[in-house]
Amino acid sequence: MYPPIFETLVECLRKFPGVGQKTAERYAFEFLKWDQEEIDDFLKACSLAKNKLHKCKVCGNLAEDDLCEICKDTTRDITTICVVEQVQDLMAMEKTNEYKGVYHVLNGAISPSKGILPDDINIDALIKRCDDSISEVIIATNPTVEGETTALYLSKLLEKKNIHATRIAHGLPMGAHLDYADEMTLIKAMENRKKME
Amino acid sequence: MYPPIFETLVECLRKFPGVGQKTAERYAFEFLKWDQEEIDDFLKACSLAKNKLHKCKVCGNLAEDDLCEICKDTTRDITTICVVEQVQDLMAMEKTNEYKGVYHVLNGAISPSKGILPDDINIDALIKRCDDSISEVIIATNPTVEGETTALYLSKLLEKKNIHATRIAHGLPMGAHLDYADEMTLIKAMENRKKME
Repeated sequence: MYPPIFETLVECLRKFPGVGQKTAERYAFEFLKWDQEEIDDFLKACSLAKNKLHKCKVCGNLAEDDLCEICKDTTRDITTICVVEQVQDLMAMEKTNEYKGVYHVLNGAISPSKGILPDDINIDALIKRCDDSISEVIIATNPTVEGETTALYLSKLLEKKNIHATRIAHGLPMGAHLDYADEMTLIKAMENRKKME
Repeated sequence: MYPPIFETLVECLRKFPGVGQKTAERYAFEFLKWDQEEIDDFLKACSLAKNKLHKCKVCGNLAEDDLCEICKDTTRDITTICVVEQVQDLMAMEKTNEYKGVYHVLNGAISPSKGILPDDINIDALIKRCDDSISEVIIATNPTVEGETTALYLSKLLEKKNIHATRIAHGLPMGAHLDYADEMTLIKAMENRKKME
């Protein structure tokens, strides 16, 4: 048996997603190799993250202040809202450097089988944001069962409020080969075909 | 871009072995979900591990006091020393519940290509421990190039001191199938064959 103090550290590290006993032990041994400065930096980063980071009051993105950097940015088009499941999706979209509107982070997707109902995710705040000033809501939830369910649910709510809602396109990813694509993707790619211009 | 505080936490988490940008981000998001008690437990476990854990003065095993639990245990046979590369190897050996001697942790293996020379690992202390009272030193370094090099180096040093040194057996692991075994393992298994009893 490892010393109890070591076991406690391993138990804590096992809480990270996908980390089992062996990996947690490897992390703990690595941790013990760090010098005092590295440890201090790490503990400080943990404390700061816990105390200073929270959700943007408008869109649910990660923020150090009341508003996130995107909601604070006056050059963004606040009449277009892109709805995503989680902050990571927002970041993926930002990396394209194409989209200039704002976001709304749901923090999940509707999944009756996992007990996640519409009230459990950040939908209310989205509907409240959607007044006459909004020209388009782009629903960019994942093309999974949960994401599609959520998209359908949102589109109905938005329709009632006469908001123009769109869904990001499904089809073949760029660089893909047809013979490696799954059937659902091919069906979607055929359904959504466009006239060549 | 994520908020700087978040990025700093991700940078720290990337220092764990095998953790890339994506995994570190997942860990950081998981960390933000923990409640205050979980965070406090984690920070305390980190501090305790850094401040209270060190190497056993005799064998190099992890210890909370000067001596590790094994070196403190008066029922162990202190005339037999099993030499391993790292603490994890010692733990693997302990799980068998068969070995009743003591250990010596080298904290690495000789690897000229990585610049690890005999002076860089815990060999000196081993040689000093090996006096007339020692009946056997079992060299249980890994059956890798580095482990074999280290085993050979140690056996020569111990021979000079007239210490009886042995090497753990190489061969087919239990439950293995011959047609899946690699050539070196089969060669070793043939070389080390024993008379049936």
